Amino acid sequence: MPGDPLRTGRLGDARPPQVMEFLSSMEADRWIADADILVDIAHLLMLSERDIIDPGAARAIMAVLLELLDEGLPEDVFDDRYEDIHAGIEAHLIARVGQEYGGRIHMGRSRNDEVATCLRMRLREELIRQLGALVRLRTLLITLADRHKESIMPGFTHFQHAQPTTLAHYFLAYEQAFGRDFDRIRECVARVDQCPLGAAAFASTGYPIGREETAASLGFAKIAENTMDAVSARDFALEAMSACTLAMTTVSRMCEELVLWSSSFVDFVHLADPYCSTSSIMPQKKNPDTAEIMRGKAGTVNGNLVSALTIMKGLPMSYNRDMQELTPHLWRSVGETGRALLLLKDMLETAEFNTERMAQEAGKGFSTATELADVMVREFGLPFRTAHGIVGRAVRKGTLDLESLEEAAREMAGLSLTERGLTDARIAAALDPGYGVSVRRTPGGPAPEATATAIESRRKQCSDDEEWISMVRIRIDTAQAAMIAQARRLVASPEH
Amino acid sequence: MPGDPLRTGRLGDARPPQVMEFLSSMEADRWIADADILVDIAHLLMLSERDIIDPGAARAIMAVLLELLDEGLPEDVFDDRYEDIHAGIEAHLIARVGQEYGGRIHMGRSRNDEVATCLRMRLREELIRQLGALVRLRTLLITLADRHKESIMPGFTHFQHAQPTTLAHYFLAYEQAFGRDFDRIRECVARVDQCPLGAAAFASTGYPIGREETAASLGFAKIAENTMDAVSARDFALEAMSACTLAMTTVSRMCEELVLWSSSFVDFVHLADPYCSTSSIMPQKKNPDTAEIMRGKAGTVNGNLVSALTIMKGLPMSYNRDMQELTPHLWRSVGETGRALLLLKDMLETAEFNTERMAQEAGKGFSTATELADVMVREFGLPFRTAHGIVGRAVRKGTLDLESLEEAAREMAGLSLTERGLTDARIAAALDPGYGVSVRRTPGGPAPEATATAIESRRKQCSDDEEWISMVRIRIDTAQAAMIAQARRLVASPEH
Amino acid sequence: MPGDPLRTGRLGDARPPQVMEFLSSMEADRWIADADILVDIAHLLMLSERDIIDPGAARAIMAVLLELLDEGLPEDVFDDRYEDIHAGIEAHLIARVGQEYGGRIHMGRSRNDEVATCLRMRLREELIRQLGALVRLRTLLITLADRHKESIMPGFTHFQHAQPTTLAHYFLAYEQAFGRDFDRIRECVARVDQCPLGAAAFASTGYPIGREETAASLGFAKIAENTMDAVSARDFALEAMSACTLAMTTVSRMCEELVLWSSSFVDFVHLADPYCSTSSIMPQKKNPDTAEIMRGKAGTVNGNLVSALTIMKGLPMSYNRDMQELTPHLWRSVGETGRALLLLKDMLETAEFNTERMAQEAGKGFSTATELADVMVREFGLPFRTAHGIVGRAVRKGTLDLESLEEAAREMAGLSLTERGLTDARIAAALDPGYGVSVRRTPGGPAPEATATAIESRRKQCSDDEEWISMVRIRIDTAQAAMIAQARRLVASPEH
Amino acid sequence: MPGDPLRTGRLGDARPPQVMEFLSSMEADRWIADADILVDIAHLLMLSERDIIDPGAARAIMAVLLELLDEGLPEDVFDDRYEDIHAGIEAHLIARVGQEYGGRIHMGRSRNDEVATCLRMRLREELIRQLGALVRLRTLLITLADRHKESIMPGFTHFQHAQPTTLAHYFLAYEQAFGRDFDRIRECVARVDQCPLGAAAFASTGYPIGREETAASLGFAKIAENTMDAVSARDFALEAMSACTLAMTTVSRMCEELVLWSSSFVDFVHLADPYCSTSSIMPQKKNPDTAEIMRGKAGTVNGNLVSALTIMKGLPMSYNRDMQELTPHLWRSVGETGRALLLLKDMLETAEFNTERMAQEAGKGFSTATELADVMVREFGLPFRTAHGIVGRAVRKGTLDLESLEEAAREMAGLSLTERGLTDARIAAALDPGYGVSVRRTPGGPAPEATATAIESRRKQCSDDEEWISMVRIRIDTAQAAMIAQARRLVASPEH
Repeated sequence: MPGDPLRTGRLGDARPPQVMEFLSSMEADRWIADADILVDIAHLLMLSERDIIDPGAARAIMAVLLELLDEGLPEDVFDDRYEDIHAGIEAHLIARVGQEYGGRIHMGRSRNDEVATCLRMRLREELIRQLGALVRLRTLLITLADRHKESIMPGFTHFQHAQPTTLAHYFLAYEQAFGRDFDRIRECVARVDQCPLGAAAFASTGYPIGREETAASLGFAKIAENTMDAVSARDFALEAMSACTLAMTTVSRMCEELVLWSSSFVDFVHLADPYCSTSSIMPQKKNPDTAEIMRGKAGTVNGNLVSALTIMKGLPMSYNRDMQELTPHLWRSVGETGRALLLLKDMLETAEFNTERMAQEAGKGFSTATELADVMVREFGLPFRTAHGIVGRAVRKGTLDLESLEEAAREMAGLSLTERGLTDARIAAALDPGYGVSVRRTPGGPAPEATATAIESRRKQCSDDEEWISMVRIRIDTAQAAMIAQARRLVASPEH
Repeated sequence: MPGDPLRTGRLGDARPPQVMEFLSSMEADRWIADADILVDIAHLLMLSERDIIDPGAARAIMAVLLELLDEGLPEDVFDDRYEDIHAGIEAHLIARVGQEYGGRIHMGRSRNDEVATCLRMRLREELIRQLGALVRLRTLLITLADRHKESIMPGFTHFQHAQPTTLAHYFLAYEQAFGRDFDRIRECVARVDQCPLGAAAFASTGYPIGREETAASLGFAKIAENTMDAVSARDFALEAMSACTLAMTTVSRMCEELVLWSSSFVDFVHLADPYCSTSSIMPQKKNPDTAEIMRGKAGTVNGNLVSALTIMKGLPMSYNRDMQELTPHLWRSVGETGRALLLLKDMLETAEFNTERMAQEAGKGFSTATELADVMVREFGLPFRTAHGIVGRAVRKGTLDLESLEEAAREMAGLSLTERGLTDARIAAALDPGYGVSVRRTPGGPAPEATATAIESRRKQCSDDEEWISMVRIRIDTAQAAMIAQARRLVASPEH
Repeated sequence: MPGDPLRTGRLGDARPPQVMEFLSSMEADRWIADADILVDIAHLLMLSERDIIDPGAARAIMAVLLELLDEGLPEDVFDDRYEDIHAGIEAHLIARVGQEYGGRIHMGRSRNDEVATCLRMRLREELIRQLGALVRLRTLLITLADRHKESIMPGFTHFQHAQPTTLAHYFLAYEQAFGRDFDRIRECVARVDQCPLGAAAFASTGYPIGREETAASLGFAKIAENTMDAVSARDFALEAMSACTLAMTTVSRMCEELVLWSSSFVDFVHLADPYCSTSSIMPQKKNPDTAEIMRGKAGTVNGNLVSALTIMKGLPMSYNRDMQELTPHLWRSVGETGRALLLLKDMLETAEFNTERMAQEAGKGFSTATELADVMVREFGLPFRTAHGIVGRAVRKGTLDLESLEEAAREMAGLSLTERGLTDARIAAALDPGYGVSVRRTPGGPAPEATATAIESRRKQCSDDEEWISMVRIRIDTAQAAMIAQARRLVASPEH
Repeated sequence: MPGDPLRTGRLGDARPPQVMEFLSSMEADRWIADADILVDIAHLLMLSERDIIDPGAARAIMAVLLELLDEGLPEDVFDDRYEDIHAGIEAHLIARVGQEYGGRIHMGRSRNDEVATCLRMRLREELIRQLGALVRLRTLLITLADRHKESIMPGFTHFQHAQPTTLAHYFLAYEQAFGRDFDRIRECVARVDQCPLGAAAFASTGYPIGREETAASLGFAKIAENTMDAVSARDFALEAMSACTLAMTTVSRMCEELVLWSSSFVDFVHLADPYCSTSSIMPQKKNPDTAEIMRGKAGTVNGNLVSALTIMKGLPMSYNRDMQELTPHLWRSVGETGRALLLLKDMLETAEFNTERMAQEAGKGFSTATELADVMVREFGLPFRTAHGIVGRAVRKGTLDLESLEEAAREMAGLSLTERGLTDARIAAALDPGYGVSVRRTPGGPAPEATATAIESRRKQCSDDEEWISMVRIRIDTAQAAMIAQARRLVASPEH
């Protein structure tokens, strides 16, 4: 590798390899290497447009940058004897076009603004990818809900049979939750999508640079204005990691259910073989490993966020090297979250939901008792708390029939339900799970017509969200394509 | 206290005191007790309007609710032998108006939707208060910036003298950071401001309730639609805690600076006595304790978030009692953050910034060397990397004067700077901190005119943000006032 | 309240109430108030023994201290206008005996060493209490194991039926885990049980104090030697919190099982009513709330540890006020853990384990398939991996009988099992859950004789552990009783 | 690669590549690949000794295992289409010696006990390495302390000048802290050093295996007894990560000081060039990057612990696949901690401490005021609190001389210090930093003779600790060498 251009003046270059490895961010910098070339191009174009750099130097450097863009970065720029990819690329440029030209690329900027710009570009890309995954997942949940509007299942609280509901109602609950995850990430994009370039070390620069121009070239929505803040802020990364953490918490909850539902106790779902593993010793096992690992990933992203928060806590202005240590956590969080969202969709899509078994269980565990108490209120005028007590007492006795209810009513309220007209038939009707679901027609409730309304409005929302993603993608792609075209024109321009 | 109305039917009421204390959420429920009365009023009004409850019962219960609202809750509703405030208030109502009436308040709802509604109402209030504190803090920072546009100070990276900047530039960096904290909390409010009431246990209810009406009465922006999601989601709380954590991370960074700047080494700030403590043994000490504790609070809110994330991870649908354990962490996070934001403003407002000492330090540590290298580039045509190396080498020798630069230039690039025209006078001018600041006029930079532009636009932003807060407050207050007026009319209405 | 004795010299005393409240540690200091009196007594006795304080002053102050010890602290010492309990008590002493005497108690010490000593005393007490709770819990688990050596149940991996085991084996697994928690906390006690007194602010003191004497009076095992480390170390607290976190992780795992086992799907346990709650709306519900909240507490202690770690990260030597913010997290962690360990024992003790249902489930889900594969290896010479494949394939087909096995063997290995002598009877015997358990006699395995051996050795361990607790308690109590007796003699001694 | 031997029976083998990658633990399994070969050898030897496996099969498999041990693992065993390294190695064995032989290695064990054994072996190795690094670091600190017994420096509280101390006192404070880190890790080793092998899936096995024998072969101190606990416990990993977290918290505190001390404000230390970086834009910069990154690593290990705690929380017995997700966090934590401890030693060893500047600062900021107050107590009979108040008031006035003290004494206590005999000369003597240090002779204090005593006892401790490490290493190496020799004999034994 060529020598590190940064360690020729102030400091000696000799360093023990373990120190170089410790200080180098190369491993994580692979994430931003492509972005760095784009940033170089944008910066160089601006220097050239504003006559800050000599045309000859600009052309020579740009030719190499375009080559790196077209053909990929050579492995030597990633040597971890460089502190980072920025030093690696600068050394490469100097080796290719000489220090007289190559030594001019870093005018009017610092690695501080350069790395912040790269991070934001790559993070923006990852977040937009997550938004896409979320839309696909939500679309699937809506489709599944539509298919299962009449599939009655027991709803749970405290993992106890609670009241009957439908599988559609369940899927829509998660769609709504993932919808909020979508919103959080989308709003985070707005704070990521700001360009720090031109902030230099933190104090900006005395060169007459054009911050708005480089920001526009790279497809940023705006500049990150205050230059001290621009290089020392990492709250955009903390926020992205928080959003990932929340999304993965939602994922972990659904995965817990997939694990529970896969057990032979519950048997509500059969996950497809590819998402399962067997045991090396127990030949019969089919374990829901993908769901378990995904649940575990929630722990991983929680920890990544904690790492990042601890690192940033109490750091004074402006840049501190500790911030380098934050970045790998960021990439792990967004990477794992994106991957999990896609796999969760695939796993749900290929799963079989055992609606027969769900229907069987829907009426078990006295889970329609609430409806019975409500009937006593509505039809026989009891106060709710009295009806609640009577039904509870009967359950405690072990059955819910006219006899046990009558006995409970006498004990608890000194009244007779049969006298008021309660019959075995009325009890049986009230305890039917289908009846309980059909009367829950309030907005957001499980009755099929309420579900149908919800499906329609959520479908519209998903489609709007997809549109939003598409618009942002077009804006960025257009800007960067224009920039590259301009760079090619610069290289092709005649020398004077 | 009256008996727990919930433990008369299904379960025995006898419980060891340590279990009751363990299960009770009473301590944290003090935060939501007032909200709970409002929720009761909204629910009861709706039951009455829709003829689900008998007018006599409605009037009787409402009279007690209004009394509780006007005169405050009696201490016995907080007895921790009740599981929670909801049981405490229901028991109180039954004791006051009898089970025949009082036993009807809980029709068509569950504690699951009730507590979620209360949490969202109180959290909304706390977040709006934080937004107010943030606007006041940002306004102060802008005012301080306006005062210190010309106060030159050294900027730091790695806590090393880096380049000169101004105190205004520094204050505006924090204003921008707190502005993003404002935006995050404001966006979080939108997800908090949704009403779960009517979701009941999770399956909604068979009573013909009006979810839109109760939501409107309580001043909510809309309903939390899917009823399973409405009771089992706590991401609104996790998001609020994340936002607090990020804001406190910003606070901790400024507090670190206040601690460092208070030391006699730096001596950039004198905090007012009330924010300092002395030592019990060392009579001379004046310690920046408030800043230290505030920095420590960043740790507290980080931990609260972790608690909440761990609690929620892997919980299946829908409500699980673990969620109760989340709530105290939420209140601690929002409480501490709100308090810290206000105190930080007070502490900054009363602090004296030692601009004389800042000016002295601005040129130390070769912190204007970047400008000197830039001059070599701009005026003598050197590549930036070459100029950077020469200046670095001269610093390594221990001085930045014509002689050391000349020697360094020879060693590193085999060229003579004196031949190119560099003089002692040019060096001295380049090393003047004021000069370095004055040329940094790019948007967001420290030059006074760039600062003035930034101040103007940030002032406008603060004023818009204040306006937003004011509109939300008016919307909520108006709705709740209308609801209470309607409740009073109900009580005053003639019996038929 | 009397004025704060610390704010008369260096700093003005006027402070806004919100600042006083923010800086005061009074709420958490209630935990250490009693310890503080003991520390005062030890310090004063030493000053008196070494003639550093005048006998008259010593007698006067000691009389008040003994009164506070005997009668409890008056509420005014807890006023949060004092920064902490130390200031509150000193102010009280000065108010009682005058500054000429009372102003002498703080000679040769600082609040820095004082608070560190109090924290360690109280923490030691709490940890010993936890050790006691752990021994009781482990003893119960051993007793339950002894009762259930022959209670066959399905063991699980991935919450799937895996292989048969016994309930005793399960209880002993947790006993072993809690045994390690015991060891960790016991070892932590050794690092807590060191006396910082005499370190003063961090530099010790020029008075001829006796550090060994005060340490002995307070029952400490030794002094915390280096005085700078003595006041600035909080790793003893972090370690205690880590140990709590690990213990609560174990608790959370068992609670997860209690929640799952309580569902009507599994129905392995019936928790006693006092540990359960019902629903406010669903009359039939009996929810395992105590287990759920306990599971949630694991989140709480995780977060407390994170708070403390974040607070300590990067704090330079020696004392920093941030450390005050650590303490409430410490008390919450040790308090919650101690409480949970006791309640878990009570909950298990009163629970009914449904061994009939466990036995029924033990053979389900093909959970004895491993034994069948092993039989093919042992009796028919197949390689294990081949047998494993054959049995797995048969399960995939849906049955484990001679026909499906024969077919699988042909497909997978081209061999005939019937030819090798496999019969229906041999299959049936291999698939009997009792058989599978009875052959697992290796140390630590589920066979009743292996279990009996384990029970014996663990009982011995528990008894040794109880003995250890007892010895430590006696050492501390004896030392403190001797100190108090000496203090009483001092007060009773004639004036000269 | 050969096919996955586990996916031939129960499940289909076709899986999308992203699922295989998601489920595979191969990347982290590189840490345990060598240990896995040793575990295979120990297991196979035991099967052979106990005649559970046929001699021919044993010899054939062992020959391959020894080859893998001697020549390293071929890359194809790490293919991430295998779920893990265990499957990769088993597939390799089967490919090499055929299923008839190779299909027998997995008799009587499961991947559950296998991986737990590998984790414990590798972790033991890493922890012992950390212990070695800690001893080296502590030895250096003691050496530095010995060199600087008379180097007076200001001690700090709240980063304010507090009292004079010596650089030796400071180094010994950290030595003591790292000594506790040593103890924690050593005690953790005892809980790691237990062998799970033979626990199989969790229920042990019906084969007549010898758990004590395999444990001894691998150099374990004992077996992890209860077999359900043996495979499902990960508290050994959590404890190791906690210990790392605490050690890194200590490291982060020292690094904070190195960063502060490197600034030109403080200028107490000059770090050697290899541990520093310069800026890409500011040519004069020499930044303490290694110390900053190391401080950041404290955040990384905090987060890793949180990830692991979150993952384990609430997992029911016994093995769950989530546990796989824990392991990479473990390796990162122990790896980073070991690396940081070594680099910290190197960085301190090559640093220059600017004792001249320390001496200059030792008397600044009125940091000897405590001694002056003590003089008033000892020589002029004032109560300490009065003397403290007088000195504090004088400092507030801005000087500590006879005049300001006299005035303060009159104001605060109505007394005259000159009348009591205080003179300018006495004040000057009391304010001399050297005097303040020399009188602090209490154990653990900074006076040179107290320091010398501490150095002697800590040197002895370090030497004992080194001896302990050496004994453990010998025990493990001897056992494993004996095992390998036995394996070679087996392969060389004549076929019958």
